[in-house]
Amino acid sequence: MGSQDVVKLLGVEVSPVSRRVEWALKLKGVDYEYIEEDIFNKSSLLLELNPVHKKVPVLVHGPKAMAESLVILEYIDETWRQNPLLPQDPYERAKARFWARFADEKLLRVAWSALCSLGEEKEKKLKLAVEAAEKIEEEIKGKKFFSGERIGYLDIAMGWMVRWLPVWEEVGSMQIVDPVNFPATKAWMKEFLNHPVIKDNLPPTEKLVLYLHRRSKMLSSNPRG
Amino acid sequence: MGSQDVVKLLGVEVSPVSRRVEWALKLKGVDYEYIEEDIFNKSSLLLELNPVHKKVPVLVHGPKAMAESLVILEYIDETWRQNPLLPQDPYERAKARFWARFADEKLLRVAWSALCSLGEEKEKKLKLAVEAAEKIEEEIKGKKFFSGERIGYLDIAMGWMVRWLPVWEEVGSMQIVDPVNFPATKAWMKEFLNHPVIKDNLPPTEKLVLYLHRRSKMLSSNPRG
Repeated sequence: MGSQDVVKLLGVEVSPVSRRVEWALKLKGVDYEYIEEDIFNKSSLLLELNPVHKKVPVLVHGPKAMAESLVILEYIDETWRQNPLLPQDPYERAKARFWARFADEKLLRVAWSALCSLGEEKEKKLKLAVEAAEKIEEEIKGKKFFSGERIGYLDIAMGWMVRWLPVWEEVGSMQIVDPVNFPATKAWMKEFLNHPVIKDNLPPTEKLVLYLHRRSKMLSSNPRG
Repeated sequence: MGSQDVVKLLGVEVSPVSRRVEWALKLKGVDYEYIEEDIFNKSSLLLELNPVHKKVPVLVHGPKAMAESLVILEYIDETWRQNPLLPQDPYERAKARFWARFADEKLLRVAWSALCSLGEEKEKKLKLAVEAAEKIEEEIKGKKFFSGERIGYLDIAMGWMVRWLPVWEEVGSMQIVDPVNFPATKAWMKEFLNHPVIKDNLPPTEKLVLYLHRRSKMLSSNPRG
């Protein structure tokens, strides 16, 4: 393998969006070097490779560097064609992309925002998050994975729900996806968590809790983060 | 053409994201029926076809309906292969998708939000919008279109800047893209505006101004819109 083909991933162990890229690379069987970033003290390499957002994940493929996890997933799928992540049919692809955006904007961001809020604001955010989760529950009903029989793009995009969401719910003393109202989502979470590539590539719950405590201290001493 | 192939677009004349889909269909030479929605009184057809967001644009292709303008652009590009909108190279595709997301999140939303804010909040938003516009200025330098010699996906995604942004700047008594600091962006705006498909498919400035006044009255009587 020439230097043109070397694959590196700049990530953070506790980041749900970094993990998406790792899962995709592993599902594709692509060898890569993993470089752990310190989210509290960003490296000059990260700032150089992602000057726009200064965030992980960054995928480096030879001389090319790119950011934004969902954009990187598309790149991976177009570059290494084995084990396709997106469906082949344009309409099925559109639906997968639609729901990935929906889950990021209406559930991931809103659940995180509920975790960081208090009082009435938190209740408002929780209500919105539950409404979004209800739409996702309808979408997963009757399917093993969002992508059908095999893990794909949309499962990867939703993957944060199996480890991060329960920790956020616990730390934030809140519940979004309860087993009574979300049986299909819970069943999918179990399937996803049991997949060999996923179960061996998740941060331990304790690390996520520690990270949240460290981050909440930083946010309270400097609210702009 | 069988009913399986009939293409319909539910849009709103003054919506920048509806226009993206119209531009893409016209650049591809796809015949479609256009259905104007009333943003202040949504039709039952819109609510049925886009129950998740209840927003335009919605593209209907035979029995399939889909929402989210950038998702629809990908569908159009994958379904009608003539005059490609996205580049062919996976890395160039990743860059186009990255910048389209960036422009939506960091410029379109923030400029709109500045228009709807006052005082210190407005100043803060304006500063962020100018910073985002500076990054876009670097990206367009030395190119005719974002996609090179021909209009493509990223130009369409940025297209709102040629008509909506100047109106927002005027109505909001603010300036984001001034000619002195943004010569490359201004040159691109001129090229884009002169393209035959674009110049004949823009809402008149007066209609945008009228719409903003109507909307601001509605927002002030009911802040949740």
